[in-house]
Formats: sequence, structure tokens, C-alpha cells
Amino acid sequence: MEQIKDYITTHKDRFISELVELLKIPSISADTAFSQDVLETAKIVEKSLKDAGCDKTEICETKGYPVVYGEKIIDPNLPTILVYGHYDVQPPDPMELWTSPPFEPVIKKTDLHPEGAIFARGACDDKGQMYMHVKAIEFMIKNDVLPCNVKLMIEGEEEVGSDSLADFLTEHKEKLANDIILISDTGMIANDVPSITTGLRGLSYVEVEVTGPNRDLHSGIYGGAVPNPINVLNKMIASLHDENNHITIPGFYDKVEEVSDAERKEMAKAPFNLDDYKKALDIGDVQGEKGFTTSERYSIRPTLDVNGIWGGYTGEGAKTVIASKAYAKISMRLVPDQDPDEITQLFTEHFKAIAPKSVKVKVTPHHGGLPYVTNMDSLGYKAAAKAYETTFGKTPVPERTGGSIPIVALFEQVLESKTILMGFGLDSDAIHSPNEHFGVWNYLKGIETIPYFYKYYSELAK
Amino acid sequence: MEQIKDYITTHKDRFISELVELLKIPSISADTAFSQDVLETAKIVEKSLKDAGCDKTEICETKGYPVVYGEKIIDPNLPTILVYGHYDVQPPDPMELWTSPPFEPVIKKTDLHPEGAIFARGACDDKGQMYMHVKAIEFMIKNDVLPCNVKLMIEGEEEVGSDSLADFLTEHKEKLANDIILISDTGMIANDVPSITTGLRGLSYVEVEVTGPNRDLHSGIYGGAVPNPINVLNKMIASLHDENNHITIPGFYDKVEEVSDAERKEMAKAPFNLDDYKKALDIGDVQGEKGFTTSERYSIRPTLDVNGIWGGYTGEGAKTVIASKAYAKISMRLVPDQDPDEITQLFTEHFKAIAPKSVKVKVTPHHGGLPYVTNMDSLGYKAAAKAYETTFGKTPVPERTGGSIPIVALFEQVLESKTILMGFGLDSDAIHSPNEHFGVWNYLKGIETIPYFYKYYSELAK
Repeated sequence: MEQIKDYITTHKDRFISELVELLKIPSISADTAFSQDVLETAKIVEKSLKDAGCDKTEICETKGYPVVYGEKIIDPNLPTILVYGHYDVQPPDPMELWTSPPFEPVIKKTDLHPEGAIFARGACDDKGQMYMHVKAIEFMIKNDVLPCNVKLMIEGEEEVGSDSLADFLTEHKEKLANDIILISDTGMIANDVPSITTGLRGLSYVEVEVTGPNRDLHSGIYGGAVPNPINVLNKMIASLHDENNHITIPGFYDKVEEVSDAERKEMAKAPFNLDDYKKALDIGDVQGEKGFTTSERYSIRPTLDVNGIWGGYTGEGAKTVIASKAYAKISMRLVPDQDPDEITQLFTEHFKAIAPKSVKVKVTPHHGGLPYVTNMDSLGYKAAAKAYETTFGKTPVPERTGGSIPIVALFEQVLESKTILMGFGLDSDAIHSPNEHFGVWNYLKGIETIPYFYKYYSELAK
Repeated sequence: MEQIKDYITTHKDRFISELVELLKIPSISADTAFSQDVLETAKIVEKSLKDAGCDKTEICETKGYPVVYGEKIIDPNLPTILVYGHYDVQPPDPMELWTSPPFEPVIKKTDLHPEGAIFARGACDDKGQMYMHVKAIEFMIKNDVLPCNVKLMIEGEEEVGSDSLADFLTEHKEKLANDIILISDTGMIANDVPSITTGLRGLSYVEVEVTGPNRDLHSGIYGGAVPNPINVLNKMIASLHDENNHITIPGFYDKVEEVSDAERKEMAKAPFNLDDYKKALDIGDVQGEKGFTTSERYSIRPTLDVNGIWGGYTGEGAKTVIASKAYAKISMRLVPDQDPDEITQLFTEHFKAIAPKSVKVKVTPHHGGLPYVTNMDSLGYKAAAKAYETTFGKTPVPERTGGSIPIVALFEQVLESKTILMGFGLDSDAIHSPNEHFGVWNYLKGIETIPYFYKYYSELAK
């Protein structure tokens, strides 16, 4: 595998320009206005798998956006690694906060990325990290050092809940059969602190609608006498956290795994500086559940956040109106062993229960996902750890992060295999935010590290 | 004045078509995109005053939109009535709820308007009610029965707080000198229950901005650990009312005039049916300050309503983001003797005081207005009452309403004259809402009643 360094030196410009082309297409799965772009992206991804040397590639139709599949089977008796990634991206808004257009990639230097970072929506999440695998596989095939079989499954609905994937996995269980699943859709602590994600939070996402009067009203003529749905919604949402920032939904914490003090001590060793954290976000103080540290709050504890709220007059100037309806998008991050469907149910019942009889309330579930924890004694974890040691010269830190990759739990259920999360992005890469970027160094380091996972996994699996 | 009936019969079609033309122009003062339409409307209004027979008309420039002025002076020794109205309108959104386009007027029958109502933004507030005066004056001049002098002042910034009017009044104090001011920008209880507005609420309107992190964040990676400005804003707004719907801003009620039980008994005589009220708005229950009836809540008590709120992702689908900022437009209706500037100040101090140190808060005042109460023993009130008795055959009910016409108080301060509010619209005419309309019967009844006010006022003033 040592040739990987030279191969990267020779081909890095092409690796970057290929990714830049991929980033130019606005494959926003949340907005139907971009459906053609999403489909176009699937085609380009399939071609890239063919070019990398896969024997077989196809675009597999689903009820939603297609899954791009590719494989290189060198010997049925050897282990098989299944790579998962996604080619869809988050919506870019608020557009006005981007320093360069989200779909016109540019490379700019930053403090954390002195060698430059590619700025574009999807640069890190997940086109960039997905494409590392395509290039790593290209290297192993072209140089005839692929030590095992590989399959790739790149989907187009991750940012909207992977709705079609459960069916896809069930229908193609045989085709997707594998020994281990490899995903790069998470981050690492720092370029000099490699880490492997061992825990992920689950997700329950709902949209709520509160209806007061049957039409918008003049706030002078009716104000003070009728239910204002915005005021009511505010009261209802405010009541979902108590003074200690505990979530007040009955039963919400019933299945939350209590992490042992020993494990909390272990986690506390990961480098974290509260002042730097506050400074980086320019916040006067952190805010969260009483009795837990900041890193615990975003990793081992569940949350409830309003992701969006709207109602009434939001235009220029002043309009004295009482709106008929108010809306909010609310998501809850879940931890083992909370179940998304159960939490969505608990939320819905509670939210309707706390509504005053003056208003009507509607709760619409969006997507959900199970939380996941991976085992540090597994072959996969050990192989990944050795790979990082080889290319970073450091043992990676096991880390539980707050994000959700709903399908990781799904894989275990349907495909009965474990997932290893090797992320090469940084939290500061602003995924889901304006000015998302991905360090060129990180991109190439990922391409360099991945082949070693194949090497060590194949050796350990013997 | 008896000829007015025949004059209306002869000219009603023209009266309606002229108003329809006026309603076609989207004179939305709150949105600069429509500034040309607002200015265009001013020109048309000036022409209508000329056509009605005014000796002198002009478009008076201000820092904002112009004031249209017109006058007919028949004898300096006779009393002078100053008519006020406005030619600007509220924004029409939400557009999707209009059954016909807001600026394409159509006449449709409704339960309350069996003879048809004109549906258009501004039909009632205030183009329709303003134009009643133009047509009533046309009648008196053409038939040579104008019993006193008349001046008209039609502004274009009423819906955005009449910012330029204070200066205008001061600069043109002489020109605007009058004995009584007459305004039709309020409603009446029902077509068979004429009423005169004796009280108006004041207004304080602010916009608030809450800033959490310096950029939008991934709710998985940061959720639970950082201040979510939407959740924080919700908590702050929720805390502005206690469990009895009293407003919690310190000092807010200090100057609220306590209405005597006797007066409350008198007011309670005005016809009001709670079930009909709830049914008309399709609300499960009314909601308001403990210890007061519904009609008291919207007339003699101050309020705090969120008129608009926005933040985070409000598009299609689900986006797991923690917004950097959240916003709300909040208005407070005031009663005697609350002062808008003082209340805005109290709100601002309190709102900043309750903000957790994790966020930054900005409060921007929009427009305000003083509350107003008129005297039932005045010549003006008596003349108006007689006018209604003549054309409706009923003594009008004195009514305090919740709306605000900030400049009514301003008139008393600067021009030192009293205002009479003769409104001919109904609360159900949906002003400030989609499908605003104005009954054709009400429009013509206004034109019929106004000349009698001139007659009786001139007689009583002798």
C-alpha cells in the first residue's frame, strides 16, 4: 500500500478537479425544484465508479432518488467491504451568508486549513468524503493491490431521511452482503487528533402547526381577546424545557442509557477547551442540560431544538396582524436506547395535550433514525485504528458525536453487519451551514488512509 | 340635504366604478417595491378632490409619501370641518388565502352584505371609507348645499405609522385650522346597529432580533450544548404573559386608566354574543386577560401580540440546523393613559433584562401612537349622533374599539381640535386580512349620512 503516497502526489490535481466538478451540481434532495440536478449527480457518481475500475455499476431506482451501486469482486472467499455514502446535499440557505456561491467551488486558505480548503455545499458532507473512497479504490484497483472485495452504495436521500433505503436494503440483501460497512460521513477532532466515531445520536423530526382564528385578524380590533397562534406556539415550545433545560415530555428519558462515570471520565480526556468553543461560536455562554458537560450535552444526552419557526408578517416594515397559523420544525436528537418512532409518538401526544382548547394543533412527523454505538473490540475498529496509526502516526481517539446517520442502525438490523465510521472532516468545516468547506489536506489524507483499512482488515479477518 | 338620496340613486354606479379604479392600484406603503403605485394613487386622489369641486387641491411633499390636500372655503366666518383619511393600504399577504386577487376588485354577495360587497385590499381600510367623503362633498358642492367650509387631508403612510404627519401638521398648522376633524377609518357594530367610536387604543410596535451562534450550526453536532436563538426567543416571548395573561413587563400597567364599574356596565349593553364570536372565528375558546370580558379585552385593556416570527429553515422538507438568529415583530395595544414611547422603553429594557447571557438581543422600535378617548357631550358627537338617527332611524351606540389611529391624538396636540370617528365598515370586513371587503350598502350609506353631519354640526355651531 506504500505506493499510495506517490499515487496521490501524481494525481492530486485530478482528484481535486474531479471533486470540484461534482460539487458544482446543486443536488439538494430537500427541494423538489432541484430533482433534475440530484438525478444528474447520480449519473456522474456511477461513471466515477466505472472509471475507478468497478466491474459492475448501476443506478438502482427507488421510490425516491436512486441509489448508485458499484462493485469489484476479486475472490468470493475473501472478505467484502461495503462502502456507504450519499451524493445529495443540504439546502444552502441562508444564501446571503456565503462568501462565495455554494455551487461554485473555490479553494481558500483558513487558519485550520493552511493548505487550503474547498468551499462549496457538500464539500465535506458528503460528496468530498464519499469521493475519497472512490479515489482510494481507484488506487487499489489500478495498482492491483486491492486485498479484498469491495461494494459501494451511494444514496441520494440522506439529507431528507433516507426514506427509500430500508426497502432498498431488504430488496437487495444478497447483492449487498458484506463483512463490514465503511462510512466517511462524520468528523474527526483535529488534524493532529485523529478520532473514530463510536457513537451516533438518533433523530426524531416533526413539523407542528398551530391554528388560532380561521383568518388573519387586525391586531387592534381582536388583539387581547383571541388566541394568537404565535404567542400560543411560543408558550408551548417554551414549556418543552424546564429551568434546568431538561425536556419535559413525559417518558422522554425513560430509555436513555445512563453512561457510567468511568466512561464519562474516559470521554472527558478528549481535548476540549470551553473558552475556544465559546470564542469560535461568539456566544456569551454555552447552554444546555444541567449536570452535564458541554461535550456530554452534544454526545450522550438527547436534545430538543427548534430548527425553524414562522408565522404572521415577516416582510419589511410593520403589519398589525394576528396570524391564523404559526409553524415550527422541531427535531430531537436521541441516544441509546431511545426509539425514534416512540419519541415522535410521545412528542405528538404531549404537544397536543399542552395545547389550550382555544387552538387547533397538527403534528407531522418527518424522518427519524435510531442512535448507534459501535464496539471498540471489533476487527473493524482495530483495522481502522491501525490505519490511522500508519498515516497519522497517532492512535485515534474513540469519540461519540451528536450527529445522526439513521441508516447505520438500519444496516445492523437488515444487513446484519457492523459499521465503521472513519470521518476526515472537522466540526469547523461548517457542514449544514453557509461556507461549508473541506480541507484539501483532509481530503488527500482520507484517500491515503482508507487503503490501509482494507489492508489491515483483510489481514485481521484471515 | 334630502336630495342626497336621489343623487345617490342617480350616481351610484359611477360612485362604485370610481372606487373600483382606485382599488386597482397596490398602494402598499410598507413595501418600498410599491412606492410608484403609492405616488400614483396620490395623484388620482388629488384629481378626485378637484372633480368633486374643491377650489384648491395640492400634493404636499413630506419626508415620506405625500399628503393630498383639498379645500372648499365658502365663508371664513362659517365653521370648518377637516376630513382625514389615508390612501395607502396594508400588504395583502398571505396571497394564497385570497379568493380573488387583492388588486382586482370584484363585487360578491355575503351573508352580512346581501346587496354585495367590494372585495379588494383597501376596500374598507381606508380607500372606500375615505372616498365616501369625497362623494358626499361632491354632492354638497354640485347641489350648492355645503353649509360650512371643508378641508381634506388624505395621507399615504397611515399603515406604517404616519411618520411624516407630525411635521406636516406643525408646518401647515394655519392651512389645516379647523373646528372639528371627521374621520371614517373605524367600523360600526352592525348594519342595523350604528355606532360611533368614542375610544381608540394606542400602539407600540417593536422588532426583536436574538442572536445565538455566529453562524448556522448542525443541530446534531452542536444541539444541546449551544443557545438555540429560536428556543431562547420562544422562552422570552412566553415569559411576557403570566398564567392569567397579564403582561409581565414591569411598570406596563402603571398608567392604565381603570374604567369605572358604571362605565363597564354601560359598555356591556352593546350587543355581543360570545358563541357567535367564537363561531365566526372558528376558535375553540376566547383567550385573554383574566378578570375582563371579551369586549373589554379588545377595548379598554392593553395587549401584547406577536405579529410575525421567523428564524431557521422554513422551506420544504427537514433541515437539521440551529439558526444563528431568530426574529419577531411584537406590538402592544395601549389604553389611556399609557404613553407609546414610555412603553417601548419599558419593553426594550425588560426584553434585554430577561435575555440569557448566552445570546445577544436587539430591539428596534417601529411606529407608535397614543390612545384616544372622545367626549360624548361635544357638538361633534351630537351632530354625528343626529346624522345617524336621520339616515339609520336609530340612535348610534358609543363604542370603544381596539384599533389605533395614532394621529387622532396627534391632532388634538398639534391642531388643538377634537376628532369624530364615523365608521361604516364591519369588523367582519376583514381589514388587514385576506379577502378584505366593504359592503356596497355601507359605502352608499356613508355617502348618505356624512352630509347630515355637516348640516347638524353647522346648525349646532351657530
